[in-house]
Amino acid sequence: MTATAATTATATTAGTADPAVAGPLPVLGLDVAVPLVTGGEIGYAALDYAASAPALRRVWDDVAAYAPYYGSVHRGAGHLSRLSTELFERARRTVAAFLDCRPGDQVVFTRSTTDSLNLLAAALPRDCRVFVFETEHHAALLPWRGAPVTVLDAPDSPERAVRTLERALAGRDPHGPALVCVTGASNVTGELWPVRELAAAAHAHGARIVLDAAQLAPHHPVGVRDLDVDWVAFSGHKLYAPFGAGVLAGRADWLGEAEPYLAGGGASRAVVRRADGALDVEWHDGAARHEAGSPNVIGAHAIASACAALTEAGFEALVARERYLLGRLRAGLARVPEVRVLSLFGDEAPRVGVVSFVVEGWNASHFAAALSAEYGIGVRDGLFCAHPLVRTLLGDGDGDGDGDGAQAPGGCGAAEPAGGEGPSHAVRVSFGAGTPEEHVDRFVEAVGRLVREGARWSYRTEDGRCVPEAPAT
Amino acid sequence: MTATAATTATATTAGTADPAVAGPLPVLGLDVAVPLVTGGEIGYAALDYAASAPALRRVWDDVAAYAPYYGSVHRGAGHLSRLSTELFERARRTVAAFLDCRPGDQVVFTRSTTDSLNLLAAALPRDCRVFVFETEHHAALLPWRGAPVTVLDAPDSPERAVRTLERALAGRDPHGPALVCVTGASNVTGELWPVRELAAAAHAHGARIVLDAAQLAPHHPVGVRDLDVDWVAFSGHKLYAPFGAGVLAGRADWLGEAEPYLAGGGASRAVVRRADGALDVEWHDGAARHEAGSPNVIGAHAIASACAALTEAGFEALVARERYLLGRLRAGLARVPEVRVLSLFGDEAPRVGVVSFVVEGWNASHFAAALSAEYGIGVRDGLFCAHPLVRTLLGDGDGDGDGDGAQAPGGCGAAEPAGGEGPSHAVRVSFGAGTPEEHVDRFVEAVGRLVREGARWSYRTEDGRCVPEAPAT
Repeated sequence: MTATAATTATATTAGTADPAVAGPLPVLGLDVAVPLVTGGEIGYAALDYAASAPALRRVWDDVAAYAPYYGSVHRGAGHLSRLSTELFERARRTVAAFLDCRPGDQVVFTRSTTDSLNLLAAALPRDCRVFVFETEHHAALLPWRGAPVTVLDAPDSPERAVRTLERALAGRDPHGPALVCVTGASNVTGELWPVRELAAAAHAHGARIVLDAAQLAPHHPVGVRDLDVDWVAFSGHKLYAPFGAGVLAGRADWLGEAEPYLAGGGASRAVVRRADGALDVEWHDGAARHEAGSPNVIGAHAIASACAALTEAGFEALVARERYLLGRLRAGLARVPEVRVLSLFGDEAPRVGVVSFVVEGWNASHFAAALSAEYGIGVRDGLFCAHPLVRTLLGDGDGDGDGDGAQAPGGCGAAEPAGGEGPSHAVRVSFGAGTPEEHVDRFVEAVGRLVREGARWSYRTEDGRCVPEAPAT
Repeated sequence: MTATAATTATATTAGTADPAVAGPLPVLGLDVAVPLVTGGEIGYAALDYAASAPALRRVWDDVAAYAPYYGSVHRGAGHLSRLSTELFERARRTVAAFLDCRPGDQVVFTRSTTDSLNLLAAALPRDCRVFVFETEHHAALLPWRGAPVTVLDAPDSPERAVRTLERALAGRDPHGPALVCVTGASNVTGELWPVRELAAAAHAHGARIVLDAAQLAPHHPVGVRDLDVDWVAFSGHKLYAPFGAGVLAGRADWLGEAEPYLAGGGASRAVVRRADGALDVEWHDGAARHEAGSPNVIGAHAIASACAALTEAGFEALVARERYLLGRLRAGLARVPEVRVLSLFGDEAPRVGVVSFVVEGWNASHFAAALSAEYGIGVRDGLFCAHPLVRTLLGDGDGDGDGDGAQAPGGCGAAEPAGGEGPSHAVRVSFGAGTPEEHVDRFVEAVGRLVREGARWSYRTEDGRCVPEAPAT
């Protein structure tokens, strides 16, 4: 941890003055070499941070230091049980501070952003209408089962997003409780959404708002009070803490009035069998109400460690460094005319280190497979669990992604076979605080070479995945 | 891992011949020293395995070896994404083999047993009636919200349990779908339940059965085919793999017909916005249907590692060793007349290494606190998330645990103040494959000394917990 802290300090002090020379935060996996289909091996360039980021070295060290002290949380009398309970509750406070929560806000540890939003969906008051843009990740688009949902059209600017929301909220009938769910940064385009303005619009119209910060929190400070959002959800595995935990933080009232998310021990304060044989259950208040079962204390501790590491590194330096890398990446892609970057808000819109694109004449799966097999670069291809958005961005008029009026095959990012008229899916490259500049440069170089010279191997689809077949002739 | 494997082999070969000399499986935390209130420190004796067991050294080593290779599961094109996906799917196969699942059975990774049973509860067919003994852990007792539930009286023998279930199933009206939920080993008494016979009874009456194996799987082989149960649920954190994952394994049909447990990416195959603005969602089949969000690949890998370690050590040796330790522990407690061990099925009933007891003249919380503060032994006090059972065993006629007709205060194992007429809660000691014989002996010795000589400090309740107050006068 001493070494990590020292490296972090270097990154911070050097970062703002000249981002180009600031080092990345130490993460696991930087020394992993992978084989190239063309022979030999190369250091793996992890450029799929938007799906899952590598663990910060600091997070791993903290988990490793705690592991021998692991004990049952909350209900044991032993020394390590008490230590573990304190660690778990301290993690809650660290997350609350990281998000600048209001007094009285609750921090519930879930398993992921998806889980967090499903929890909130289960806690909606009766007849609450949900407003969500079609541009959202499925985790934000789909959990609102049982509630009336208004799906809003993709806006072409942040201003339009606010106007669209305002109009929808003002026009709702009846004018009951409402929740707006919006992402902080798109998992497809990386573009920042006008969260503060959307929150103001929501509140002006008597609605509440939950921020899907899965893509924002690893890159930008997320202040509950500054943004004035009612809840925030994010995932440990995108925040350099991949130990199965996530967070829902925010207003206590809806959560406190709702039925427990899971029923079981930990959520139940008292269970008594009545004379008629049935069970009377008294549930806990507070976060415990929605955390039935033994808490994932390692996962919570890992998230708290990541929050502390990012805070200590300083978001100003992290943002500056990522902006620098993003500039290099986008400038590199701009030099390849065959590459079309997907964007909703235009070139000038502020964004995080997430870029999706299509390459003229290339099937996205083959392109991603060649980046991996021939250059050791890990990106992603598909629809990125945001099908309506990606299809809109690909310009698929019939809305099903393949331009032929039929429903697109394959799953969330599943490799689709080449062919057809237009691109049916895209390539996504994404990075973060642990990304060395060399990875970005290698990616830019590889894209250029693939487009100029073609792939050195041919690829075929096997079990829904693109795999190298034979050297290109 | 070589060292771990060597130690494991020693335990296996020596275990069956003379269990007394077989070593425990290596776990983390054996070298942790904790302070004693009386001065100095001592190696921590973790005797709360039934809540959370320490990680096997082998599990930790496997997680540590994988951590640098961590990548996004299922949907990335990069080398480490593919490696991580393979690891995740291999973990599924390892668990299926560990449980001796049938062809076609599904293994869903959840976060815990509680989560697994809540998932199954959400997948019940319409009008399915649930049968559950009042003796169950709350995780098995409470998830069946929305379904009609028949709570069965505590039986006083395994045979009575089967007869009680048969009568209830035969008498159900209407004779529709039914599910029986039963534990394999009680988390309070450690007693084994007649799972095979209950499964036969369930099937004879057209019902299905889910086995809560949270307490059984760490101690005994759990064979889905041998026991003929329809589903099995267990938790990683009780199986020496505390990384936030659990398992629900079994029949695919109810799971496949149910709405996805969580809505989001990973569970959704295709999402299309219709002309009227609403969303059409096509969900995945198979395990992915209920695993929305990025899977906890480290948690799943850790569980698979534990399954492999237990299989390699051999359950015959593990069972023999635990039986030996349990014999020492129970013989030791039997020498203290003030100790009353809680039992449903009687002294001779087979059981795992879980023993709950009360001590005449002692408040259970104070007793557990003294074991920790004066002897470095971590046990648990309370009602163990099985309130109706513990109250029945304590002989609380009015069923609320405190013998006074009012509802007992405190939560799941929360420390209650001393006083009142009879014991309102109990002490639980539990161990497993990593427990050294010395821990059991120290516990037995400590119980005897506490009862004979009293505690050396006085204790008071602070924030619902017992803490040392001052040296006893």
